[in-house]
Amino acid sequence: MEKFSRNSRVVAITKILSENPNKVVSLNVFSELLNAAKSTVSEDIVIVRQILEKLSLGKVQTISGAAGGIKFIPNIGEVEKQNFAEELCQKLMNKERIIPGNFVYMMDVMYSPEFIKLAGLILTTFFTEKQIDYVVTVETKGIPLAYEVARNMGVELVIVRRDNKVTEGSTVTINYVTGVNGSIQTMYLPKRAIKKKSQCLYIDDFMRSGGTAVGIRDLLKEFESDLLGMAVLIDDLTVSEKLVEGYHSIIDFNGVLNGEAKFTPS
Amino acid sequence: MEKFSRNSRVVAITKILSENPNKVVSLNVFSELLNAAKSTVSEDIVIVRQILEKLSLGKVQTISGAAGGIKFIPNIGEVEKQNFAEELCQKLMNKERIIPGNFVYMMDVMYSPEFIKLAGLILTTFFTEKQIDYVVTVETKGIPLAYEVARNMGVELVIVRRDNKVTEGSTVTINYVTGVNGSIQTMYLPKRAIKKKSQCLYIDDFMRSGGTAVGIRDLLKEFESDLLGMAVLIDDLTVSEKLVEGYHSIIDFNGVLNGEAKFTPS
Repeated sequence: MEKFSRNSRVVAITKILSENPNKVVSLNVFSELLNAAKSTVSEDIVIVRQILEKLSLGKVQTISGAAGGIKFIPNIGEVEKQNFAEELCQKLMNKERIIPGNFVYMMDVMYSPEFIKLAGLILTTFFTEKQIDYVVTVETKGIPLAYEVARNMGVELVIVRRDNKVTEGSTVTINYVTGVNGSIQTMYLPKRAIKKKSQCLYIDDFMRSGGTAVGIRDLLKEFESDLLGMAVLIDDLTVSEKLVEGYHSIIDFNGVLNGEAKFTPS
Repeated sequence: MEKFSRNSRVVAITKILSENPNKVVSLNVFSELLNAAKSTVSEDIVIVRQILEKLSLGKVQTISGAAGGIKFIPNIGEVEKQNFAEELCQKLMNKERIIPGNFVYMMDVMYSPEFIKLAGLILTTFFTEKQIDYVVTVETKGIPLAYEVARNMGVELVIVRRDNKVTEGSTVTINYVTGVNGSIQTMYLPKRAIKKKSQCLYIDDFMRSGGTAVGIRDLLKEFESDLLGMAVLIDDLTVSEKLVEGYHSIIDFNGVLNGEAKFTPS
């Protein structure tokens, strides 16, 4: 079987690690794929680790023990974070985005892999030290973002529905009060969607009063599970009384005045 | 400014390329980041290209001209495709997945980054030769899969809604007939979601009769846009009369008999 040069091996290792964030990959995987001794692969990994850390592209952790291996933890530099937030604000402040009722059109941004990849990466960095079992969101606009965070954290995504579906089996239903206009809404989640005693993150596109976040926390209680953290892409500062605290956001929405929307980095 | 070794440079190039599939990255980006001459970077890229192709991890294309650079086209080997389809069938045939009404619970799979990453990659490989502007899906279950395909193809995702939202501006609405029970459903898409004369792919989790696919095609006509291709994770073969043809799928659903679901690779 063919032998590969170190240059080739580090390329393959980098590719596989970066596509399996927060998953422990055994050294055997690389050793077999690349037909190289584990000691050789270990040296390759040192090279990969050093350059990724130096360029703030992520960390490579060594996990010892029988189920051990290496794990890639995605990262993004502080300058890139700041630039992303500023660019996003600029993009959303385009006057053509204002729609009747003083809403800001942002579906394109919420569904754009180009933006959501980076936004998801930034939100992930807030939780790298936490042990998480699930990333939870409510349909629909926050799904791509929550999916990115789940992907980066190497855990499952759970999508709470606003309608009950016959194809999902028995369901836990909760009613919650939206903070903004006090209307009652309902959320549905199949009983088998979350294992008991799980630790969850709530990720969404937009935080108004936080009524949905409270609903999610209550829903998770029904699964005997905890909400360990929350993060959104945009925090709506026009709603000053929030029902939750301690959440993260990337940019703030400061309202629409004279046909102009104002956004600032959080 | 620091110089990097070739080993380090190929790691950085691989990382950046694999996170920006189907996006043209200028050689200047690498040249500046790595403080290396373009000719040096070009040699690095040859190394990256060779090993990624050899291991069926993707292709690196050179785009010449003023807006030129290099582009990474994701790929997956035939054996890995086959293994994925077989493992997915096994997983879905677990008896505990059967829920009342002879439905099969598969929300966990549809939202699992571990599965959807690979499923999205496989579906992407069917369309690598096509020039696509948007990947289109209908909320909710197919969103993670469609997002992965859009991410791999370097294009925007468009999510068609089943309800009209005031926050999205003027909307194009179409009614369509579901093939299975002939009921009338409605789909909504904001006018500004798709530019005229666009070429689109429709991606979804599950294909029954194809009524939704016909609805999407009609909806795209309202945007003077074309549906160039369709792909789903699961083709439901219990519905034999399909309203569309020429779509791709990864596995087939052959029905539930005596409390056991049957799935086979497509």
